[in-house]
Amino acid sequence: MRYQATILIELKEGILDPQGRAVEGVLKGLGHEVEAVRVGKVLEVVFPASGEAEAREKAQAMARLLANPVMETWTLEALKPL
Amino acid sequence: MRYQATILIELKEGILDPQGRAVEGVLKGLGHEVEAVRVGKVLEVVFPASGEAEAREKAQAMARLLANPVMETWTLEALKPL
Repeated sequence: MRYQATILIELKEGILDPQGRAVEGVLKGLGHEVEAVRVGKVLEVVFPASGEAEAREKAQAMARLLANPVMETWTLEALKPL
Repeated sequence: MRYQATILIELKEGILDPQGRAVEGVLKGLGHEVEAVRVGKVLEVVFPASGEAEAREKAQAMARLLANPVMETWTLEALKPL
């Protein structure tokens, strides 16, 4: 079976996010009231696995490799069979 | 009230994604079987709104500004009151 995992990688609280600040400035300049913007990455990974438990384990192992543990946190946002 | 919107911005199908290909190569090099990887952006936006309906409308308006309609699609992944 094939699974698709959606992994979110975001900067930890307290880490400066210049890209988020830039987006915040743009939205404000266009007339939107915003208090904060944080920008992160989303990865959609398609991979084979024999079942949901194995798929979850593989997705978590890949997320751990892709996030920088010093500055980033990761979340397995979704996991679905294809 | 304040709301937090999670907006995903991803490249449309058919648009080449060199960053995704690079991540795919890295995962394969580390011994993971993967078929495809697509990389996009996730934005967490905090903004004031009087209720859920207004918050949803504002979040969608901002997402429309932030995604490039030629190459990207956006999804309002989550909307929660803070």
